[in-house]
Order: sequence, then structure tokens, then C-alpha cells
Amino acid sequence: MDTETLTRFTNRLADAASESIMPFFRASPVVDNKVAGDFDPVTAADRDAEAAIRRIINQTYPDHGIVGEEYGSERADADYVWVLDPIDGTRAFITGLPVWGTLIGLMHQNRPVFGMMAQAFTGERYAGDGQAAWYTGPGGDRALACRACPTLDEAALFTTSPTMFSENEGRAFRRVEEAVRLSRYGCDCYAYCMVGSGQADLVVEAGLQSYDIAALIPIIEGAGGQVTSWDGGTAANGGRIAASGDPRLHEQLLDKLKID
Amino acid sequence: MDTETLTRFTNRLADAASESIMPFFRASPVVDNKVAGDFDPVTAADRDAEAAIRRIINQTYPDHGIVGEEYGSERADADYVWVLDPIDGTRAFITGLPVWGTLIGLMHQNRPVFGMMAQAFTGERYAGDGQAAWYTGPGGDRALACRACPTLDEAALFTTSPTMFSENEGRAFRRVEEAVRLSRYGCDCYAYCMVGSGQADLVVEAGLQSYDIAALIPIIEGAGGQVTSWDGGTAANGGRIAASGDPRLHEQLLDKLKID
Repeated sequence: MDTETLTRFTNRLADAASESIMPFFRASPVVDNKVAGDFDPVTAADRDAEAAIRRIINQTYPDHGIVGEEYGSERADADYVWVLDPIDGTRAFITGLPVWGTLIGLMHQNRPVFGMMAQAFTGERYAGDGQAAWYTGPGGDRALACRACPTLDEAALFTTSPTMFSENEGRAFRRVEEAVRLSRYGCDCYAYCMVGSGQADLVVEAGLQSYDIAALIPIIEGAGGQVTSWDGGTAANGGRIAASGDPRLHEQLLDKLKID
Repeated sequence: MDTETLTRFTNRLADAASESIMPFFRASPVVDNKVAGDFDPVTAADRDAEAAIRRIINQTYPDHGIVGEEYGSERADADYVWVLDPIDGTRAFITGLPVWGTLIGLMHQNRPVFGMMAQAFTGERYAGDGQAAWYTGPGGDRALACRACPTLDEAALFTTSPTMFSENEGRAFRRVEEAVRLSRYGCDCYAYCMVGSGQADLVVEAGLQSYDIAALIPIIEGAGGQVTSWDGGTAANGGRIAASGDPRLHEQLLDKLKID
């Protein structure tokens, strides 16, 4: 599976997802609650898009596995496994903000080898294969590169929400937040792409699923950054995630994130 | 000054702003600190855009006044006064997020009569004259209308940051946040446009300047919503601002926002 083939194929998946999703964006989509009593919006767009992506994968690569947010796992023990989140950032989606994205990742023997984030409203696509990363969309196609930022006090930090953390995670997060120059909330996958394109320096999150992060790892790493769990292990399985655009930041970041 | 003339003229101003701004967006713009020791990013884009807008206004309507974020006031006692914020949401801008906007408002005898929010990266424009409001851009042009949301427990709330409030303002804000279904941070002017287009229900902010809000009032009101200060007075001068898409929400909102 060379990068050119993967890029062409993943663009096809992203096109199908976009077609399913866009009729629902800013169109008062039906909002279900996945877990009663806990607000977790899922739209018809989410389900339609994942079904469309699965259909194409199953037609083209019937021996590949698929893990997705909406429809679970099939052939999860295959050599190649696609990891899908059709709408990452459902809260952004249902409030009309163009900072959600379709995440399409490919794992080879449990290691993320290719990933794309597609923003259907703006037409932005961020992709990477761990060695390189690139952007196509408004403003012109270009290679992605994280920016230099050697110390935390110069860093811009993203997190989805300061309320996503447990008590001791929250203490760790606040240690980071107090050390940085600027922090912003509410961007999900888009935040990682801003680190990958040199617009921000750090993302700190917790409670992620594999499909929330797998596609983003080859983008961040391809742009020169690092992404691990808070304790320095693999990020591919989700959980507590820390991403740094400048690798010199990463150790300083993990040091602040030691759970007490 | 009829709405058609104003729309055409304001689009010209927004085009000029966009031309000044876009070369700097996602291009590592120079970031100055306005107030030493206090992080307040201002970019070259901001200054160039406001200068470009002022030039066109002064050529076309030399008797109109102008109040802007970057270059202060001229003829502020004129009958018609333009109120400008070339990049509202500088933090979004410097972190690469397309949720900042160019705000162009027109006051007549101190009352906002026309306003536009232009997002130069996505090409979205939201405008209103207090009687009607409309959108042009990706997804197709359409009239803007706030959505029905009769009670706080169904409402989606926006604020720029939970850290923008003083201590007693923060207590008031948290009373609102605890009462609503969903809250989101970090959208500045974009949040008001999402209320105006029926994607969210409330915005609560404090410490605003006139140029942060004047352009947004005719959009929210034109779409059927209400926007006032926390104590129910005019929003046009900035300060503590509360906006509701459904007017039935507004009294409930102001009740929670009574400063103790």
C-alpha cells in the first residue's frame, strides 16, 4: 500500500462521507442520545457517512478490518484495519462550527500508518503517513510542518474541554495550562491539524477512543511532531493523549502530566 | 441609506478587509503585545484591514464617523458612525481556526442599523439590518432565522472563555452554564452568527467593546433574537452582553445574570 494509492483511496472515502454529511450540517439534524441521561449527540449524518465509507472499503479491500464509532468492529484482527470517526467533534457539528472533521485512519499490525482529517464544509483535508504530511484545500495545497517552540511558556495549547477530565487528570491539565502562553477549548480533531500545520503547539485530552486519534497520529508525526499517551506510551489505543508540535516540548509536557 | 446600498457597500469593505487579512492567516503573522505583560495579539493583518476599510469609507462617505479597534475614533459625533473590528477573535486567528471574523457595523444616532460579519477563509458572510438577516456563502445563500428554544434546559450556550469574567460575573455565568443543555467556548463573533442562524441559542460575554458587538446586533435582531446588556439595557456600547435566539429565553437568561 503506497502513499499515493492510499491518498487516492482515502480521498474517495472522504468524498463519500462528505456527501452523506453535508445535507445535515446546519440543517437542524436529528439529535439522538446514545447514553440516556448523558448528552452525546449522534446525527443521522454520522451513521450514513460511516455506512458509506464501510461499503467502499468492503468492496475494495474485503480482507481489511474496520473499527468505527457508529458500527463497531469487523475483522479487527486483520493485518490492515481502518479506523473511522465520520464526525469527530459532534458538539461543534450540532452548533454549526466548521471545526469538526471526518477521521479516516489505517493501522498496519496495530500501528497507525496513514491518516486523513477531512473538513467537508471548508473543503480542507489534512493527511499524513508518519514520514510526511500535507494539506489540500482553500489557501493552496502545501506540505505540513509543525513549528518550532522549545519551551512551554511560548506554547499555544488546545483541549476539547476543561470539563473532560477526571479530578486528578484535571490537576495535571491545569499544571500545563498554567505553564503555557495561550490555551483554547473546543476543537477536537481540528486542534491536532493546527499543531500539524504549525498554528499551535500542544493538544492535551483524556478519555479518547482509538477512532478519535488513530488517523491523526500519522499527520502529527509526518509533520514532525510527537503524540503519545500521557505516560509516553502509544497513542493509538486512545485514552489520555498528549501531542507536541516541537519534540523538545514533549518531555516537558509529559512531566507536567504525571498523574498524582 | 437603504439596505441594498448598504449591503453592496459593506461587501466592498469586507472584500478589502479580506484581501488585507488572508495573506497573514495561517502564515505565522507577526504578533505584537498591545499591553505589556498582558497577552493581546494584534496582527499586521488587523491594522492593514482597518486602514483599507477606513480609506473606502472616507472616500465614499466623508461625513460619516468611524470607530475602530486599531485606529480609534474620527467624527464620532456624526449622524452615521461605522464601527469596525477587522479581526474579531484574534486568538482563533493566530491558532489557525476559521471562527474569527471581520465586523462592520453602522450606527445611526447611536443605534446599530446595519451589520455584517465576514469570514474571509470560508467565504461566509452574515448580515442584517434589524428587520431581516441573511447569509451568503458555502452551502447556499439564505435568510437567517433564530430557532425556537423556550427554556434554558434545552439551550446551547456560547461564550468566548470562562476566564473572561470577574469573580461575580463568573458566578452569574456559571448559573447560566449549569442551567443549559450544552455550552461551548471560544468563538467570539462567530457565536452570535450561529445564534442568528438557528444553530445555537445563547451567547454570554463580558468586557466587550462597542466594536465587538455593534455589527452583530442588527444580525441577531434581524433573525428574530434579542441582544442586550446583562441588566436589559442597550448592547451597543459593549460591556456585559447577553444574546438569545428565542426571545422567550431572554428574561430567563437575564434573571440568572443578575450580579450578586
